[in-house]
Amino acid sequence: MRERTEWLVELGSNENPYGPSPAARAAVLDALHGMHRYPDPRGTRLKHALAALHGVEPACILLGNGSHELLMQFAQAFAGAGDDVVYPRYGFAVFALATQAAGANARVAPALPVESAMPLGHDGDALLAAITPATRLLYIANPNNPTGTWIDAATLQRFVAAVPPEVIVVVDEAYAELADAPDYRSALALTAAHGNLVVTRTFSKAYALAGLRCGYAIAASGFVAVMERLRESFNVNSAALAACEAALGDAAHLEWSRARNAEQRTVLGDALSRRGLRVLPSQTNFLLVGLGERAPAIEAHLLQRDVVLRPMGGYGLHGWTRITVGSADENRRLLAALDEVLA
Amino acid sequence: MRERTEWLVELGSNENPYGPSPAARAAVLDALHGMHRYPDPRGTRLKHALAALHGVEPACILLGNGSHELLMQFAQAFAGAGDDVVYPRYGFAVFALATQAAGANARVAPALPVESAMPLGHDGDALLAAITPATRLLYIANPNNPTGTWIDAATLQRFVAAVPPEVIVVVDEAYAELADAPDYRSALALTAAHGNLVVTRTFSKAYALAGLRCGYAIAASGFVAVMERLRESFNVNSAALAACEAALGDAAHLEWSRARNAEQRTVLGDALSRRGLRVLPSQTNFLLVGLGERAPAIEAHLLQRDVVLRPMGGYGLHGWTRITVGSADENRRLLAALDEVLA
Repeated sequence: MRERTEWLVELGSNENPYGPSPAARAAVLDALHGMHRYPDPRGTRLKHALAALHGVEPACILLGNGSHELLMQFAQAFAGAGDDVVYPRYGFAVFALATQAAGANARVAPALPVESAMPLGHDGDALLAAITPATRLLYIANPNNPTGTWIDAATLQRFVAAVPPEVIVVVDEAYAELADAPDYRSALALTAAHGNLVVTRTFSKAYALAGLRCGYAIAASGFVAVMERLRESFNVNSAALAACEAALGDAAHLEWSRARNAEQRTVLGDALSRRGLRVLPSQTNFLLVGLGERAPAIEAHLLQRDVVLRPMGGYGLHGWTRITVGSADENRRLLAALDEVLA
Repeated sequence: MRERTEWLVELGSNENPYGPSPAARAAVLDALHGMHRYPDPRGTRLKHALAALHGVEPACILLGNGSHELLMQFAQAFAGAGDDVVYPRYGFAVFALATQAAGANARVAPALPVESAMPLGHDGDALLAAITPATRLLYIANPNNPTGTWIDAATLQRFVAAVPPEVIVVVDEAYAELADAPDYRSALALTAAHGNLVVTRTFSKAYALAGLRCGYAIAASGFVAVMERLRESFNVNSAALAACEAALGDAAHLEWSRARNAEQRTVLGDALSRRGLRVLPSQTNFLLVGLGERAPAIEAHLLQRDVVLRPMGGYGLHGWTRITVGSADENRRLLAALDEVLA
């Protein structure tokens, strides 16, 4: 692994350049004296804070060692050999990993065409068509990584209602707090009416706590109870429990972070477009950018300038690169290095 | 969950009352500025420190979100429906959980008789006899939780050599650093000769970092490579990676903590024996103590005095209780409360 320096512009992992709430740091400091104790195995305080935030019962909340752990365990719990799991092409990479680890069959629904209004985004009709009688689980991400695209509120509502009730629908909303499009809506409001709907969130993005590993799911209490029996007793560490609870209490920091990201997302997107690059619409803290055949050469050049992007070959998105929206300084460094190679 | 107060004497979870190395706390402080970044997914620095400590290649080391996660994933990876998993009666509780979560059949080998030299300890012959052609995995713990017992070096070596090479033998050594019996030996020295041997360790006990969640396994590099493909990319958080690496660098603190535990283990064991209670031999930081029919009443009385023990009904060890060896002050509080109820 490349050693990070203070000069490295790390735009490959969709991290939040603004850092967590100072209250989160203070909470970790405060928790330091108890590191010899096991974490609260029930995460009671964090669950109550999340319940208050989202207006649900604590029994509807499941905590994970990042939402990654939860996405993996859903497949482990509900899909096995002979079962189908449906997810979209260009969906979050963990959907495929979870399906494979569970030994289930992947049914990958085609994405929307690149020349559509929501290029490479999730195609609700294609996802519904991929469901078979053997389907146990369906994963989508909204907004989606690595495309940045989203499903509009009306389409999402119709889609969730159209999935057979015996199929669990997981909507990963890792980037939800960063979305501000008028037609974007979280699926959380739909969980009350749909017992098969599971929404995952993370503290790694808008809350800038990726290092501590904490995510959560909101779902029907019966679903949560099943998952609680499967998980390890101490899956979320004490530092994460304390920091996340404190972060939830600092709405002003979240708003500030969100506003800066939204501003820089527009600034960077416009700057890249002006350079003749295709930039997909994004409701996240990254942009999927078309570089064409030059993609590997451009990525390599930027790496030499200590600017890290995320190549998309692993997703089958050759000719595209994923760029985290950095701070204003980081974005300037990126554009300067990019201009060298585009010249 | 009961709120902890400064007066609570928590002797139910085998935590280390002396706390981690100050260097570990300082490392978490230092890591605080990077909490918005993902952890090093490979844990390179910690793996190298562990490799140096144990004289193995970094490729032979697997890191987990506590050894609990690793113990679960071994079964998930290697045992499924129709497979057998062997473990001892009164062995660590996670063995049964891992077997059940994997959907495998549990074959529970009887323990040594309570009137033997190693009461309720692992019976190597019984474990070997429990192995069938369908057995994929065998778990033992040495020293064992909740009995505190251990397998002597010669028996362990014969046992490991006698297990068919196609059966994976997991030796959980969560308490190894606290063992000082002349006939105790870690199984680590046997991993070079036995490709089917996996040893797990934790930072939760001697290193007093239970809150941060980090454990590791040492095994053949081929085994580790398989597990690396299964695990989540960021399963160990940044605070844990930094703290554990720093803790490894403070051998003096470990030795101090170990010596205090050994001293208090003797002091507490003797004090309990003098009160006519049966105390099993222990190489850990806890004692399994026979209370007979009064066990629930005694545990309840101590709880009223804010002294928490671990009832053993869940292990089928009715009439026994597990008592963590606390600090000198904690042990005095325990004995004072115990004397009230024994009077």
